[in-house]
Amino acid sequence: MKDKNSKLSTEAYRGVRDFFPADMFIQNYIFSTLKKIVEGYGYLEYNASVLEPADLYKQKSGDEIVNEQTYTFKDRGDREVTLRPEMTPTLARMISAKRRELPLPIRWYSIPNLFRYENPQRGRVREHWQLNVDIFGVKTIEAETEVISVASDIMHAFGLKDTDFEIRLNSRKVINFILNEAFGLNADEAYRVAKLIDRKNKMPAEEFTAEINKIMPDAGNDFLTIINSKNFSDLTENLKGGEALKPVLAEISDLLGNLEKLGITNVIFDQTIMRGFDYYTGIVFEVYDKNPQNKRAVFGGGRYDDLLDIFGSEKIHAVGFGMGDVVLRDLMETYGTLPAYDSGIRVAICLADKSALDFARDLAQKIREAGLKVILDLTDKKLGDQIKAADKAGVPNVICLGQNEVETGKFKIKKLSTGLETEVDEATLVKNLK
Amino acid sequence: MKDKNSKLSTEAYRGVRDFFPADMFIQNYIFSTLKKIVEGYGYLEYNASVLEPADLYKQKSGDEIVNEQTYTFKDRGDREVTLRPEMTPTLARMISAKRRELPLPIRWYSIPNLFRYENPQRGRVREHWQLNVDIFGVKTIEAETEVISVASDIMHAFGLKDTDFEIRLNSRKVINFILNEAFGLNADEAYRVAKLIDRKNKMPAEEFTAEINKIMPDAGNDFLTIINSKNFSDLTENLKGGEALKPVLAEISDLLGNLEKLGITNVIFDQTIMRGFDYYTGIVFEVYDKNPQNKRAVFGGGRYDDLLDIFGSEKIHAVGFGMGDVVLRDLMETYGTLPAYDSGIRVAICLADKSALDFARDLAQKIREAGLKVILDLTDKKLGDQIKAADKAGVPNVICLGQNEVETGKFKIKKLSTGLETEVDEATLVKNLK
Repeated sequence: MKDKNSKLSTEAYRGVRDFFPADMFIQNYIFSTLKKIVEGYGYLEYNASVLEPADLYKQKSGDEIVNEQTYTFKDRGDREVTLRPEMTPTLARMISAKRRELPLPIRWYSIPNLFRYENPQRGRVREHWQLNVDIFGVKTIEAETEVISVASDIMHAFGLKDTDFEIRLNSRKVINFILNEAFGLNADEAYRVAKLIDRKNKMPAEEFTAEINKIMPDAGNDFLTIINSKNFSDLTENLKGGEALKPVLAEISDLLGNLEKLGITNVIFDQTIMRGFDYYTGIVFEVYDKNPQNKRAVFGGGRYDDLLDIFGSEKIHAVGFGMGDVVLRDLMETYGTLPAYDSGIRVAICLADKSALDFARDLAQKIREAGLKVILDLTDKKLGDQIKAADKAGVPNVICLGQNEVETGKFKIKKLSTGLETEVDEATLVKNLK
Repeated sequence: MKDKNSKLSTEAYRGVRDFFPADMFIQNYIFSTLKKIVEGYGYLEYNASVLEPADLYKQKSGDEIVNEQTYTFKDRGDREVTLRPEMTPTLARMISAKRRELPLPIRWYSIPNLFRYENPQRGRVREHWQLNVDIFGVKTIEAETEVISVASDIMHAFGLKDTDFEIRLNSRKVINFILNEAFGLNADEAYRVAKLIDRKNKMPAEEFTAEINKIMPDAGNDFLTIINSKNFSDLTENLKGGEALKPVLAEISDLLGNLEKLGITNVIFDQTIMRGFDYYTGIVFEVYDKNPQNKRAVFGGGRYDDLLDIFGSEKIHAVGFGMGDVVLRDLMETYGTLPAYDSGIRVAICLADKSALDFARDLAQKIREAGLKVILDLTDKKLGDQIKAADKAGVPNVICLGQNEVETGKFKIKKLSTGLETEVDEATLVKNLK
């Protein structure tokens, strides 16, 4: 027990956010906009607990994440528990658990909160919410086409234009071919080079060059030529045995064609796109903010056909992406598309006289039954102060009730923005408020 | 790292739930129904992280909860963190943090997930979601009137009738008077008796009597007479100095009168209602399921005017209640009011011929733009199997597209329940689907 006289801090735990009503309004706007888009494509919502057995993250994630960046602890029964750092392993676990009952294709989404033990600097938080959109059971690039179309629709729904962002495509098969076939790297070298490519845009060009030359002292220059190729033909020409890549590049080409037919033309091929997680097996993509002050990947995803292996389930084709709430909010701030706060409360009932309370409670209930939001002033403040409070809270209308209104059953709706008053009774009230 | 060959379990962590789409449908139904009711009263949504500094729970909660029933661990920075077991301390922290900016009264709600380290037996879970409804800054029983009216409306919204449940009222002032004034118990005795009363309905009458007699060997019988009083006058007559309770009983009487005027008549006074938490200071109430197979308190709340003290903030009047999702779902199952699952997907587009894909993608996009949910079949299955899959997923309509449909621009909407087909084109499609 703490000393009763010491006062507790009102601060939230380090690196997490409190959502006051104005913050919650934005969060609800983000969630409802996301849901509307993904549900339009027939994706069904799922969820799970933030608590997962720690083992779930020990096989397929990048090492860094499991060992240093998770909240992992032992429960009182000595079980090792992790606060989920990403949703895909949970999704794979759930799909595996009901594999036989679930007809394919499966289209699912979720907006879970995820935890990372990061140093909460530069806007990085320890808890964020992330839309996860996944389709299972489609082996062709029709899955990628749909999922990228969802991503593009989401950007538009938040007010972004095609010129504001760019979709960058690659395939893990391209990278694997370069690392394993063309340059013959061993598993460890390939892993280190892949991690370097993943961070290429976040480090100076000279540093990248130096690090590559350390890993492959004899072939560094050839490798840099290839990794900096500007297009398909450059890439295949520069690559030893590059013809072997042609089917992969044809697939990317078809995907670009599909997207173009859907009017999605802000898409490029970029052989340096990696995406962090190790479980991707085919096409990967990244959505890139083109704002000159803030050029960066804002979210991405890809194909991961092998993930269910870890549960002993048969292979299942899967394509998905994740998109964080902090990044979305930043984007809306950058492009000026954040909606203005609105509590949605349509009217405040103020009391000139306490004897009107019973009548007021009844009236409020009728307004609610009509589907409108109403507050009843229960303070002992003067009428003028009650009206001011309603105005300050952004409520557009007030109804003031006293003995006279109770006796006659007639009262006025006052519109605070104009001061206009409309006399109504119970029968005409709701129509006038709507 | 685990051995690559050992297969991971697909089970969730012990005591928590996976929400597959059918579960999520119920959860979303519960949440949206709750939101609709509380927002009708002008309550604004807030939220916070599940992670809180452990200190937040060390002063005011019941001992049992802090010491044995929380998930508390040290983070990598040696900070003691707790997964919130209840929302009220978080709410008090947030209100204290912005006390000066927030005009009173404050009406806030949240539907957070809460964690208890319980033995997950008999339907008890380690993580549940709980509606929290609180009003700050109203010192009169108008606050209790409103909050109990919200609770009653919620029960009705989930399909329960007044004869299905009962609202039981008490005041901590009644209990405190009995324990401290009438029987002169010391703090420790009063605490033990209060805990016994709280569990009275969960133990055999003889056990309760025996335990009471242990604590007050000389006055046990008198105490039992009082605690078993059937009404106000019984209670004041039996009590030494019971007249002192009259203002408190008058307040309870007024509250019963207010509720009656709102048509809420399934309310009784019951001096044994405690509610678990130590922070209540006035009226407490409990909603009781009257189903003979399952008589029990399903949720409750009360007045807690002193909670902000722990942050050094000035006193603030507060009344609130909490209501769990598991209990709500159980109630709906008991009373047969659970809604039937519906994915909301309005139509499935099936492909007789792959050449129709571009046309199909376009058409799907138009249906989405009209606000309807549509799935596009991306499998290689035969047309008949695609239609069967749509039917199995509960989708009410299908559109089959082949070369002919692409060429003429005309196609049929087939209603699966009747087999009826309506020929449409792009212009008449949406109107027909709606």
